[in-house]
Formats: sequence, C-alpha cells, structure tokens
Amino acid sequence: MITDLRALEPQKLPAFTKDLVDQVCARVRDKITHLESSVAVAELTVALHYVLNTPEDILIWDVGHQAYIHKAVTGRLEDLANMRTPGGISGFLKREESPYDFFGAGHASTSVSALTGVCVADRAAGRERHRVAVIGDGSMTGGQSFEALNHLGSLGHNALVILNDNDGSIDPTMGALHAKGTYGQYARSLGWSYTFVEEGNDVVALVEAIKDQLAQDGPKILHIRTKRPDLSAPKSYKPGTTFQWWAAEAMRDILTKYKDIQVLSPAMFAGSGFGPLREDFGDQFLDTGINEAHTVTTAAGIAAAGGRPWVHIYSTFLQRAYDQIVHDVVLQGLPVVFLVDRAGLVGADGPTHHGVFDQGLLMDLPGVVVWNPRNGEALRGMLQEVALNSPSGPLFIRYSKARTEGEHRADFTPYEWLSKADSKVLWVSTGSISDLMKNEGNHLHLAQVWPFFDDFGPILANFDEIHVFEESTGLGGLGGGVAALVEDMVPRPKLVLHKLPSTFIEHGPRLSLLKEHGFDPFL
Amino acid sequence: MITDLRALEPQKLPAFTKDLVDQVCARVRDKITHLESSVAVAELTVALHYVLNTPEDILIWDVGHQAYIHKAVTGRLEDLANMRTPGGISGFLKREESPYDFFGAGHASTSVSALTGVCVADRAAGRERHRVAVIGDGSMTGGQSFEALNHLGSLGHNALVILNDNDGSIDPTMGALHAKGTYGQYARSLGWSYTFVEEGNDVVALVEAIKDQLAQDGPKILHIRTKRPDLSAPKSYKPGTTFQWWAAEAMRDILTKYKDIQVLSPAMFAGSGFGPLREDFGDQFLDTGINEAHTVTTAAGIAAAGGRPWVHIYSTFLQRAYDQIVHDVVLQGLPVVFLVDRAGLVGADGPTHHGVFDQGLLMDLPGVVVWNPRNGEALRGMLQEVALNSPSGPLFIRYSKARTEGEHRADFTPYEWLSKADSKVLWVSTGSISDLMKNEGNHLHLAQVWPFFDDFGPILANFDEIHVFEESTGLGGLGGGVAALVEDMVPRPKLVLHKLPSTFIEHGPRLSLLKEHGFDPFL
Repeated sequence: MITDLRALEPQKLPAFTKDLVDQVCARVRDKITHLESSVAVAELTVALHYVLNTPEDILIWDVGHQAYIHKAVTGRLEDLANMRTPGGISGFLKREESPYDFFGAGHASTSVSALTGVCVADRAAGRERHRVAVIGDGSMTGGQSFEALNHLGSLGHNALVILNDNDGSIDPTMGALHAKGTYGQYARSLGWSYTFVEEGNDVVALVEAIKDQLAQDGPKILHIRTKRPDLSAPKSYKPGTTFQWWAAEAMRDILTKYKDIQVLSPAMFAGSGFGPLREDFGDQFLDTGINEAHTVTTAAGIAAAGGRPWVHIYSTFLQRAYDQIVHDVVLQGLPVVFLVDRAGLVGADGPTHHGVFDQGLLMDLPGVVVWNPRNGEALRGMLQEVALNSPSGPLFIRYSKARTEGEHRADFTPYEWLSKADSKVLWVSTGSISDLMKNEGNHLHLAQVWPFFDDFGPILANFDEIHVFEESTGLGGLGGGVAALVEDMVPRPKLVLHKLPSTFIEHGPRLSLLKEHGFDPFL
Repeated sequence: MITDLRALEPQKLPAFTKDLVDQVCARVRDKITHLESSVAVAELTVALHYVLNTPEDILIWDVGHQAYIHKAVTGRLEDLANMRTPGGISGFLKREESPYDFFGAGHASTSVSALTGVCVADRAAGRERHRVAVIGDGSMTGGQSFEALNHLGSLGHNALVILNDNDGSIDPTMGALHAKGTYGQYARSLGWSYTFVEEGNDVVALVEAIKDQLAQDGPKILHIRTKRPDLSAPKSYKPGTTFQWWAAEAMRDILTKYKDIQVLSPAMFAGSGFGPLREDFGDQFLDTGINEAHTVTTAAGIAAAGGRPWVHIYSTFLQRAYDQIVHDVVLQGLPVVFLVDRAGLVGADGPTHHGVFDQGLLMDLPGVVVWNPRNGEALRGMLQEVALNSPSGPLFIRYSKARTEGEHRADFTPYEWLSKADSKVLWVSTGSISDLMKNEGNHLHLAQVWPFFDDFGPILANFDEIHVFEESTGLGGLGGGVAALVEDMVPRPKLVLHKLPSTFIEHGPRLSLLKEHGFDPFL
C-alpha cells in the first residue's frame, strides 16, 4: 500500500485518504475507543508517508492512539479488525510489530525525547535522513516534552516536530499554553522555528508544508489544526457493574458532603467515569493536564497547607510520579489519598497499561497504607471511611479495571474471612481477584494489604500451607511480606506464592490473562 | 533574628546581609559543598524574609542547597556548624526542622508544583497571603517546572515565582531557554507576567522589586541575576580510593577506544567525577540538563537507532525516570547501559538522596540485568566487559558513594567465593558491603545480583542457614529472590535477611548508618 501511495499524483491524495479512512473505520468502529484521534490525523499520516521515505526516514508517534491509520498504510489494514484482541495487533505502536513502528508509545510526551536520541545517534554515525515526531497538544502538557524541546532545541540538529492540535487528548487540554494559543512564542523561546498551518485536514496542503519544513535546516515545529470527528461514545459505566462506576457514585456523595476534599486527576477524568462529576463539582475537581509529577507534588502542597487532596491516577501513570510520591508525599508523611485506578491487568490496552508494578513499589515505601477492595461496594466503603476520617499519612486505594457485582457490604474492614473450613491450608488474597476466586477452604481477604493487621502473624501460624494470591508481579509485595512474617515460625508453614510472572503480559481479556498466567485452577 | 531583621531600616540591609554571610561561612566553609548556591542568594533570602511575613506567608525553595542563609535567618545559625553530621540539621529543607521550611526539597524542579498546591488550598479555604517560590535556572530545565508553570499560569491565582539565574546548578545549565536567554518569552507564553532585575545581589533593589511584584495580581515571574562566589573546590576524587574515581578512570580508556559509545548524564557530571572527561570527550558526553525522564528516553532513542547509549544517573534521581525505564527501555528490550551512581546509603545528603529503593524496583522488571561491584576495580572490570560486549538488553551497574580499596581483579565474574569453610552456614551478599564484611565462614558475593546464575539454587541447597545481605530496603530484592529460590527445597534452609529497615534513614557517615541499621555484627 505504501508503494501505491508514493506513486500517486498529489491531487489523488484526498480520495486515497478518504478511502483509507472508510476502510479503517469499517474494521474498527464500534470496537475501539480513541479511533477519532487517528481519524483526525488521517491526512497527516498519508502526507507523512507520502513525503518521507519511511522506514529509512524516521517517523515517531507520541502515543499510539494516533496511529491506526499509520498501521493501515504500513501493511496492517486487515489486522485492524483484530486489534486489541488476543493474538491481534496492539492498539499502540510496537517495535516488534513493524519496522515502521520505530518507537513504541503507550504513554504520552515521549516522542521528542526519542527524536533527540535518533538525532544524536545519527550525528555519531554520520547519517543523514529525515527525522519527524508527531505530538498532540495534550501530550505537550507533559513536562518531558518541554525537557526534550529545550534540549533538542539547543543542539542544532535537523529535526521536525509536528504539533497536532485538536484541543485535547482523551480529556480537554489544560494549561495556559493551550488556552492562550501561544505555541509560537513558546517554540521560539526553546530554539525552534515555528510555522502554523490551519488546514491540518487538507492532505495536499500538508504535503507542501511538510516538504517546506524538511527543506529547512535546524529544529522546526510545524503546528497544524486538525478536527476530531465524533465517532465513539463517551465512556460510561453501567450502574453497579464496575469499580469505576462505584468510585464515581461514592465520590458524588462525598463531594456533596465534604467541601474540603479536592480531587486532582492528570487528564484521566473521561476514562475514569468521573467525567460528569467534573462538571458538577468544578471547584473540587482539578484536571491538571497530562503531568503526573506536577499533580502529585501539587497534592503534597495542598496537604502541607492543611487541605485534603485526593489524587486520581491510573497505576501505569503513577509510575511517572514515583519520585514525587517518595520525595514529596511519603518522606514528608503528608496525608494524600491516592485513588489508584486500573491496578492489575487492564485487558485490551496491554503491556504499556497493565498496573502490575505499583503494589510492590508502594509496599516498599516507609509508612504508606495500601488498600485493595475486592468489589465495588467495598471500594465505596473505603472512600466513605477516608472521607469521614482523614488518614494521618499517605494512603493508596488500588482498584481494578474490572466488572464487579457488589454484595451490600459498605463498611470498611481491613480483612475478612471469605470462607472457613477444618483444614490446615490457608488462602490469602487481596483486591478484586478475591471475589473471582472459588471460595473453598480457609480464605482470608486483605482489604488493607499493607501494613499487615496485628493478628495476621498469629493467624498464619495456625496453618501448614499458605497460598498467597496477588494480581501483581515482582519479588516483594504481599508474597514478600508474608514470607518475612512466617520465616521464624516453628514449624514454618509451607508457602506457595501465586502472582503474575516476570514478563510483559500481552493484551487480552483480563480473566483470560489471569487464567493463562497462573491463576487458572483458583478462579 | 528574623524580628531584628524586620525592624531594620532598608539601608541597613546590606550590612546585615554581609554580616550574616560571614557568620554562615565561618560555620560551614570547608565542610559543605554547594555553599556558593546559598551565598549567591543571600541578598534574596534577606529581602524575602524582610518583605514577607513568614512563616504565615509562604516561601518555598527549590532544592535545599539554596537555603543555608534561610536556615540562619530562621533561627538555625548555630546549627549550621553541625549541618549534615549525625544529630545535626539537614543540608536540605525539612518540614520537621522548622515552620519556616514549608516544603521539603532535596530534588529539583518541585517548587512551583508545591506553590500550586498552596494556591489551590488557599482558594478553597478562602485564605489570602503571599505565596512565593524560588527556583534556580538549573531547576527550570526539569519538566516538572514547565508542567507547574503551564498549569498554575492558567489558574489566575496570586503567586510569585522568583527565577534565580546564575548560570548553573551543580553543573552548567543546559538547554535553549538558558542559552538564548528567552525566559521572558517563555514565561509569557505560559500565562505569567515577567520582570527582569539585573541586580540580584543588591538587597535594597530586591526589596523594592519583590514589593512591586507582590502588589500585582495574578501569576508573576521575577527573574533576577545573581553571582555565585567561588567558595568550594570542584569535586575531585583521590586516585584509587572511590568508586567514582574508578568509574571515571575506566571511562577514559573506554571512550578513547570505543567511539560509538555515548554517555548521557542529567546534570550530574560534576558530582560524579566525570567532569574532566566531559571536556576531553565532548562528542561522546552529553549533559542533558536536569531532566531524567528525557535523558532515559533519549538513550532509548539512541539504542533504537542502533547506537550505544550509556546513562549515568544517581540512584535517587533514577526514581524520576522510573516510567521511562519501564516503558521506553525495558518493555522495548533496548540495550541501554545504566551507570547507577550512589546506590545504597549516601552519607551526609541523607534521606532525599539515599539510593535504597532502586535495587528492588529494577529486579521486578522483566528482562533486566543488575550488577553490583564490590570495589572499584571490579566496577572497572564490569565497564570494560560491557564496552567489549554490548549487552542484549537493559543493564544496570549500581555502585556506591563509598571508599574502595581495589584488589587487582579486573575481569568480570558474575559471582565469587570470598571465603569458604567447613560449615552449613552461608553468607550471600552483593555490592560494596561485600568488601566491608568480615570474611568468615562461607561467603558468596553476587556481582550479578539479577538474574541469578544457573547454579545458585544447587549451591544454596547445600546449606542449613543462609544469611542474605543487601544495602537496600523493601520486601523483594535479593532477599526476595533467594526466598523464592529456596521455598521448595527439602529440607528448606533457614533464611535470615539483612537489609535496611523500612524507614527513611537520616544523614550521617555511611559506615555508621550501616552499623546502626542492622549490619553491625557483620562489618
């Protein structure tokens, strides 16, 4: 397809693009979220592959949601039908998938840094080629994009950054830069030439603009306006069926009652189910933009000033504020409440988005408290508990991107016996897998996974064999904590740890992935 | 002292400041690095505490090295003599130390985020007061400062950011913004008013400028030029005595021989001992500025383009690029070599700088290799090994901020018996504590701590009692790995894990801290 494209006369490009969009939409519509981000850059994608000699020339996309058309142009049109399903292609860029996917991207704001790397490598190798990164206006709020623009802007390499501006990523774009439309001033202050093209959905105009840019030396920003079509329905969660619905439901009550609580979210309101609350509780809901580090330290600042900050953040993006959690929140012992959404396997988004590291990370930090509700009502109970009694230090409430049934338990209890039996074998589990498991024998659920409750050791000492279940990877975490606790017992119970393997787990339905990766006989 | 200060006529301020600087220098000179950063802002510090009604008004410093004069003004003059020694005050800002230390800061670029938090909390509480953050030009290269300026610039709060510009942090300031001197353009693009004052060491002029700024509404940046006196000698390491010297020594040979290796460092050349190499190998040494996230993704970009990137980064700052390590390097399996400096306890810098989390973090990531040399020559051997044979994926070489003797072993071996005995007790250790330990009985050193070498399990199975030593905290790490390995052995050896406790460890000499925190009988 890419050879056909390059053989076309420019005037044929609009029809080619339209046909391509139709073909892509026929394959992915109704199944895939974020399709509009890709359709918005259909003309840009075609123009880029028409002008550039990819994959010899380098094209880097910031976040893969923009790249469905790119996948189609580069030989993966038919694969789109099975995108994000088991065995199918990824919804994001992926190096193993195609030589045209030069750099993987599931998290925002990395593209200009990767571009910097290519420039540096090319200079060292004495290699000349075109090097282009495409970044959205939402991703521009992430500090790494500034770091990269400021650094690469000082190096003098030939490099082109295309700023794809359509007023948003998944959420609307925050920050003064976008509100004031001062990208030109900003770009020039960082050493980049700046050109604006209004017609970002005119493929012929784009071809000309890109050629013009590539003919110039040095670092260049081409700012284009694109229009996102309205293709996919906004995220909504069926009442009572997901953790996300229960979180939003609880938050509505809490924000009505507790006017001193402020919820911060780094551009994740839409996906979280909190979208409607943002409109109703504007003063208490702060969308900071895609900037996890800033969000966490801002919350620490609120707490230091005596406020009550709650941070809503996905597990996978919490990784981007790890140092701020350690340095600004935990070391200072500040009472920041974290709603860690999408903890555990996330399903179709795959390895860039699974939340499988944070439980181990967090349990290693001195003085933190970690809660893992087993269902939506338990989550609500936790949130209500914290609204009523502010924690004395950092608290992390981790919940799954998963269906949940609820079972009319609203009060918070740090642990529960899900079943008991006359046996010397004990199951210990935490989080939503507790409710997925067969309740056989002795089964203890830890709603507060860390620190352990006082009698946990004495309880463990009653058993000969202890199975520990956690939807997490790594050498520490719950399994590591239990191991430390039983080490000195005489006799020491036999320990069997059930956790996710130390591999990057592919996309697929969460339940299938859990079964495939070691939890099969227990679910 | 602060009451005396506020009672002075403005014309008395220069003499007051001079006297204060003399008194501070008399107490800390020759002992404390980074003193010049504080002396450069002596006039600013005096002017701020003169104009502001601290601690009711809020003053936030970015990185504590700027704040020695602040400590003196706020009642800690005499304490400066014992700063950074056991029982003495911290070298950084610290909330527990004084109500004037509103927000702790050992890592750069966080101040404007904390300021945002105060603004948000104050608005919710209906509270009016002055709110000021001081940030250096070096810290401005960190993306979090952009995130915060862009966000706070859109909120319309009254807030003052003072940009203290003296051409550097510990290293010279990188990036186009500083090189081009375009701070005004940059500030205005992000919604801030901008004022420049050349006389940043004129306390009377500063008092006027600060008053002027505070009289205006909205977000304001006051950019001042200050001059750093030349007080402390540049960091140099005595030949053969530290890991840092050995690293620099090895790198000189390697960069001479291997022209394809590129070393990236986020503004840590000076402290690392690599300073002189930067001058001699300019093309191969890239100082990116204070921007760990960008540095790591740039390295990934270099690797993706077929280059050989080595990243030099302190353990405590690696925390700031955790997500980029996971998402851009490890998930993509790219061969980036990390020289993780200051792994383990760092001594006088204290809890913001101890490198006690990264070993656990890294061992939880699929497919990484982690090496911990036990002395300087072993470190050199590792670096030479990697220069000769590029790794196939991510490799982390972690070394201590510690003295080392060397012992004429240059070749890399993944493990070594340091002593053997006819006993059923085994010691297993990794990193530089191996060389600090009494060599008694059976003592196995793991130079490659992860993944374990093939015969490790069978070796462990020969013993009744295994002691595991690591200069690290957390539930996983080496201890967790050994626990998993011996779990199914029959009989299972008794395990005793020796690691740092789950607390934030204060500043003090590394050896004393190790002894105090559980390693005493073994060193």
